[in-house]
Amino acid sequence: MPGREVYVGFDLGGSFLKASSFSLDGELQERRSIDTQWCMRAQNYLDLFKDAAKSLSSDKCLMGIGVAVAGVLDLDAGKIIDSPNLPVLCGVPLLGMLENSFSPIPLQMMNDANAAALGEYFAGAGEGYESMFILTLGTGVGGGFVRNGEIWRGASGMAGEIGHMAIEINGKQCTCGSHGCLEAYFSSWALVRDAKAHAKRYPDSAIGSLDKISPISLSELAGSGDDEARAIWENGGYALGVGIANIMNLLNPECIVLAGGLVNAKDYFLPTAQNAWEENSFEQASSSSKVFLGKLGEWAGVRGAIQPFL
Amino acid sequence: MPGREVYVGFDLGGSFLKASSFSLDGELQERRSIDTQWCMRAQNYLDLFKDAAKSLSSDKCLMGIGVAVAGVLDLDAGKIIDSPNLPVLCGVPLLGMLENSFSPIPLQMMNDANAAALGEYFAGAGEGYESMFILTLGTGVGGGFVRNGEIWRGASGMAGEIGHMAIEINGKQCTCGSHGCLEAYFSSWALVRDAKAHAKRYPDSAIGSLDKISPISLSELAGSGDDEARAIWENGGYALGVGIANIMNLLNPECIVLAGGLVNAKDYFLPTAQNAWEENSFEQASSSSKVFLGKLGEWAGVRGAIQPFL
Repeated sequence: MPGREVYVGFDLGGSFLKASSFSLDGELQERRSIDTQWCMRAQNYLDLFKDAAKSLSSDKCLMGIGVAVAGVLDLDAGKIIDSPNLPVLCGVPLLGMLENSFSPIPLQMMNDANAAALGEYFAGAGEGYESMFILTLGTGVGGGFVRNGEIWRGASGMAGEIGHMAIEINGKQCTCGSHGCLEAYFSSWALVRDAKAHAKRYPDSAIGSLDKISPISLSELAGSGDDEARAIWENGGYALGVGIANIMNLLNPECIVLAGGLVNAKDYFLPTAQNAWEENSFEQASSSSKVFLGKLGEWAGVRGAIQPFL
Repeated sequence: MPGREVYVGFDLGGSFLKASSFSLDGELQERRSIDTQWCMRAQNYLDLFKDAAKSLSSDKCLMGIGVAVAGVLDLDAGKIIDSPNLPVLCGVPLLGMLENSFSPIPLQMMNDANAAALGEYFAGAGEGYESMFILTLGTGVGGGFVRNGEIWRGASGMAGEIGHMAIEINGKQCTCGSHGCLEAYFSSWALVRDAKAHAKRYPDSAIGSLDKISPISLSELAGSGDDEARAIWENGGYALGVGIANIMNLLNPECIVLAGGLVNAKDYFLPTAQNAWEENSFEQASSSSKVFLGKLGEWAGVRGAIQPFL
């Protein structure tokens, strides 16, 4: 009976649990986003997982559950080792708890950046390409290198940390303790830091007059034509482009996908980023490594989470 | 009759043709280095190849010939597309000429950086590791990422250009036309450029008194305790370490191998480089990506060239 069997993918972040059902060939069926900010205990999260799985598979047969989690995971122990945005779940054997709840339905867990990478690779902007590097541009900057459908994790799972690639020797201070990281030039926190410094120096400027400085308000200001807001996006965009050029020269993947919330402000940073990657990479590399925007937006992770079943 | 069958590996550079014979399991037997600076025509090179192969396989059976060439190759056409150090051979169908000379002995050709990478991976510092990144530190800086015995070439063969990874936005001018490339901070030409600038500014300094400024004379001066020569190596070494940290954070290979002529001056740059990679990478990445010096020196290429037969 076709269409009656589904997979459910989850993506657990700091504020929302996203959940989607998919047909057995990976086609999206239904999706929902559930507020988790009230969750105080692991059991609260577990209840949300169960409710969502139930409602998404109500009259269907649930064949597998994929879970993406925003944090550093110990997959052997099934634990979240570290997650700044999910402090309640740190050290909790979430995988085992979910397996107990859903047994005997098979369950797969992975890091959310890897899930987003697999989602875009198999069902988004990277579809049809053999090699892809994804940059997730949000509060921080993450990354992942996918080749032949497989994420390159490195010797200890640290590969893909493009946000902490140094693009300036002894450059701007980064939250990681180091200096000159890409993330210290282009990320939500870096852009907000630059805008706040500008507001402090020029309190009468449009930036200085903002109620709240955020990527969204800075993007709106740039959209209204404010040159100072535009300069902040463009300076960050140049740095991003240098990082992209480094990926082109070093890995020369068939495509480079830009994902994450900051992509919404593409009009203000992408042209400058493109100048930078064209100036800083070999023409033969930049012409063969195509740059795309992600297609799945914030829904890449739920799609990637069920990929192991397909 | 064991030991009577051999492979011969060649490595053709700007000044020398290196040649070695190997047993069928890849053990080195004999080797020689032949001056090529008198060669005016492709035929001259061809004669040297033939003479060397003959003498290295005199009473043996030649089972295969591997050729590494310092240049950009079109392997489908069997041509050297571009090679600053072998201008006579640019555009020449070298592979076909060698095949005609040696037929029916099977022949394999590859780029010299790739050959050095395979040599160190299979028979040098990378032996026993699954993933390795090699940096060749010489006149320029090359690189290669090897995984599961296979070099990652990228969408158009441009992968591995670590020498042109930007480590400083709008930094020092590079020979490639771009700015801030690793090679513009640590390479023979960059070190010589810095030393010459120093000599011009301080003609009475020890550097200013050198007859000829070269990596060798700069290394000797550093060895004699000259602080200014040491500072040049250390500044370059710090930049190299930042580049190595970027490899650790981005690819986290099991090992990173430093090869090429500049490695001879390791005492003067390696401690500072190590400080830099420890400061600029995640501890989890740097502790799992081991840094080694190459074991095969200038003979890595001839060993890598015969790898396709093994």
